Amino acid sequence: MQDRSLVSSLQTAVGRENVLTKKEDLICYSYDPTPNHHLPEAVVIPGNIDEVTQVMRLAYAAGVPVTPRGAGTNISGSSIPVQGGLVLAMHRFDRIIEIDTANLCAVVEAGVITAEFQSRVEALGLFYPPDPQALNMSTLGGNVATNAGGPRGFKYGVTRDYVLGFKMVLPDGRVLKVGGKTVKNVTGYDLTKLFVGSEGTLGVFTELTLRLIPLPESKRTMLAVFDDILAAARSVSAVIAAKIIPTTLEYMDQEAMRLIEAFAPSGLPVDSAAAVLIEVDGSERVVPFQIEQIGEVCRREGAREIRIALTEAEANQIWTARKAAFSSMARSAPTLYVEDVTVPRSKIPEMVKTISELAAKYQIKVPILGHTGDGNMHPIILTDERKPEEIGRVKQAIDEMFKAALAMGGTLSGEHGIGLDKVKYMEWELGTTGVDVMRRIKQALDPRNLMNPGKVLPTEAEE
Amino acid sequence: MQDRSLVSSLQTAVGRENVLTKKEDLICYSYDPTPNHHLPEAVVIPGNIDEVTQVMRLAYAAGVPVTPRGAGTNISGSSIPVQGGLVLAMHRFDRIIEIDTANLCAVVEAGVITAEFQSRVEALGLFYPPDPQALNMSTLGGNVATNAGGPRGFKYGVTRDYVLGFKMVLPDGRVLKVGGKTVKNVTGYDLTKLFVGSEGTLGVFTELTLRLIPLPESKRTMLAVFDDILAAARSVSAVIAAKIIPTTLEYMDQEAMRLIEAFAPSGLPVDSAAAVLIEVDGSERVVPFQIEQIGEVCRREGAREIRIALTEAEANQIWTARKAAFSSMARSAPTLYVEDVTVPRSKIPEMVKTISELAAKYQIKVPILGHTGDGNMHPIILTDERKPEEIGRVKQAIDEMFKAALAMGGTLSGEHGIGLDKVKYMEWELGTTGVDVMRRIKQALDPRNLMNPGKVLPTEAEE
Repeated sequence: MQDRSLVSSLQTAVGRENVLTKKEDLICYSYDPTPNHHLPEAVVIPGNIDEVTQVMRLAYAAGVPVTPRGAGTNISGSSIPVQGGLVLAMHRFDRIIEIDTANLCAVVEAGVITAEFQSRVEALGLFYPPDPQALNMSTLGGNVATNAGGPRGFKYGVTRDYVLGFKMVLPDGRVLKVGGKTVKNVTGYDLTKLFVGSEGTLGVFTELTLRLIPLPESKRTMLAVFDDILAAARSVSAVIAAKIIPTTLEYMDQEAMRLIEAFAPSGLPVDSAAAVLIEVDGSERVVPFQIEQIGEVCRREGAREIRIALTEAEANQIWTARKAAFSSMARSAPTLYVEDVTVPRSKIPEMVKTISELAAKYQIKVPILGHTGDGNMHPIILTDERKPEEIGRVKQAIDEMFKAALAMGGTLSGEHGIGLDKVKYMEWELGTTGVDVMRRIKQALDPRNLMNPGKVLPTEAEE
Repeated sequence: MQDRSLVSSLQTAVGRENVLTKKEDLICYSYDPTPNHHLPEAVVIPGNIDEVTQVMRLAYAAGVPVTPRGAGTNISGSSIPVQGGLVLAMHRFDRIIEIDTANLCAVVEAGVITAEFQSRVEALGLFYPPDPQALNMSTLGGNVATNAGGPRGFKYGVTRDYVLGFKMVLPDGRVLKVGGKTVKNVTGYDLTKLFVGSEGTLGVFTELTLRLIPLPESKRTMLAVFDDILAAARSVSAVIAAKIIPTTLEYMDQEAMRLIEAFAPSGLPVDSAAAVLIEVDGSERVVPFQIEQIGEVCRREGAREIRIALTEAEANQIWTARKAAFSSMARSAPTLYVEDVTVPRSKIPEMVKTISELAAKYQIKVPILGHTGDGNMHPIILTDERKPEEIGRVKQAIDEMFKAALAMGGTLSGEHGIGLDKVKYMEWELGTTGVDVMRRIKQALDPRNLMNPGKVLPTEAEE
């Protein structure tokens, strides 16, 4: 880092060993699962909120950008320090402060790993539903900063729906405390929900109060297998029309299943066109009936086979296959674009068709996974960033995919966030007024544009 | 109105008959159920979004305040035009544009009456859960502007949880369109949730996209009767500890029940200390078991009697009593302060005790109702605004009540909003940083402070 006096002040604030400036260390904090990367000038690893305050004050005074980082598992580029400056690595904030069974909530530090938190609350018969793909590595602070989703979002909502309050350090080092243990709260503007999903552009979370619910007593899993992708997509609407809300409705097309089987064989029906993984949870008095009822609906829509997992081991086998999807694809191509187009549920067949047509038109490979209950599709483009001509085609296909999603009443991002790569599309969805309103909020709360600059909002020049 | 040329421009914009300036008309738009009132200079009743845009542009250019109004049923003073100017009455926006059964959502104009909308969607087997007390009169736009709650909030959440998107006219007349028919959306800052509950201080809603869920197939109602108010309060925690989430857990103390019986006799146990009205809904396979289980929990906590409604008529009778509560109290005293203190659920017994002690200390009558599942208590102070000495005691009691709620980790408002009367407490909960962050947002989006001025945020002088 150029500014040696800043480094020395940072070392005084957080301890010498918690300020990294060697290139080999900086590289570790320069990337995420997207193709983007950029070196920070220093990595600072604070251990408590006072240290965060000091770091933010020093950076603010020096005019140095700060990019907060949980586990760096987001897939939107939002933790890449594109303007250099400091990466604020929050992994030392790893304490579960309290699990309050009487009030069905928990207080945690922002760096707690999602899956660890979930198993701790489940041991008490409670449930924290948000289940982003990376939950074994991701931090709760990162989940909140990106408003992470996951398969269970269909029934249970996303991270936003479980955040009751937080402590955050603002760009100028002030501490903001919002919300608390009450589920109802209408005291002024809903800052809790505004800051959830703001991708580190408005401040850094240090402590979270999260809502819990009782753990469902029972669950059942099934796989519905289809010879026709549109029939698979239609079955999702048919289940909802039958007024059943399963926990998950996960779509996988043939190409996705083949890639998974090549990496983690688990008996997926690779000769079929598509399969839908359906889980139901709730009371033991209801769940077995619902799973049968869903099976009938899928058969009526043309499913060639319904596999209901009879044991927990069988259910785990199906889920292991689904969870291996991204790793399988990462092995099959040097570069992945994990997209996140979301449309109203009724438009899923149309979106599936559009994606196939775009794959053919641009001669690219695009297996599709999707949380179809939410209309949240993940087309995954398998490519190679070393081939500029192919990347050109990929980018054209992505542009067209988002245009189509917006034309269907969809959104640019269901759960991954805007980060870096979708900044250029923001105005397509929000118009100049929507972007202007967001920019005014950003300017009001971060007037020097030092918090994770370059993310979420296009600069005025980019418009 | 002084400015005749503004009146004439407004008449051109919305039609002569939709601009009211006679005193007898202005009086109708000068009050709400709180003791506050203030005359506007004119009432403007636009019929479509273009007319709203024109009205807002005219007011903005003239520097005239605008106070949006649905049905004026809020109980925080938020629709009182305290700085005069225009009242923007939205009742002509009364169209249900679409009920989309495939995507489980609806698009409505902001002036649609809550109960009318609910019966329309229920006829299709769908459900819009938010149930504020005034739902037979209140508008959906008003519900969204105040983030209205209600008894069912415990299981189903509040209005905020059902708003997917909206069209709004900003203070300067620009149209902001946010969100849409997708449940998942993380495209930039969550403006949807920021504007929900902003009490008309950031713009005026014209159109809403609301989330629906399948209508539960079955429900059961019971009344648990207690000789000890603390046992009643404790039973709420015990039900939750048993991992059951009823639809409602409504607390009524003896004084509340006596006032209700005097006005609308329905057999409430007026000789008991308190009763809890409990409703469970869901699958017919589960509901009868859950209601029995809750009955057992309440008995264990000391309920002297459990009345399970055996027929729909019996259930309606219990609910009619509860719903008559406010009317009954309004007949028993010239002035009501309907308070809205919310604490973590486990603190309900402590809060009930504190309220009783304050009533004794300040020699005032304070029957208590409460959505106790949420920790959301409504102590209702029966008083007379013509007696200044008594009002002085009332206000001291209210101050102490909120101090106590905040000390218990509660909030100033669970569902009524801040409006006028709680502005002075904002800093107690949010601190100077929280108030400053909200004020910066307000200034960024309404730099001339023309949208519903005087509400939600204290002026810098008031701090």
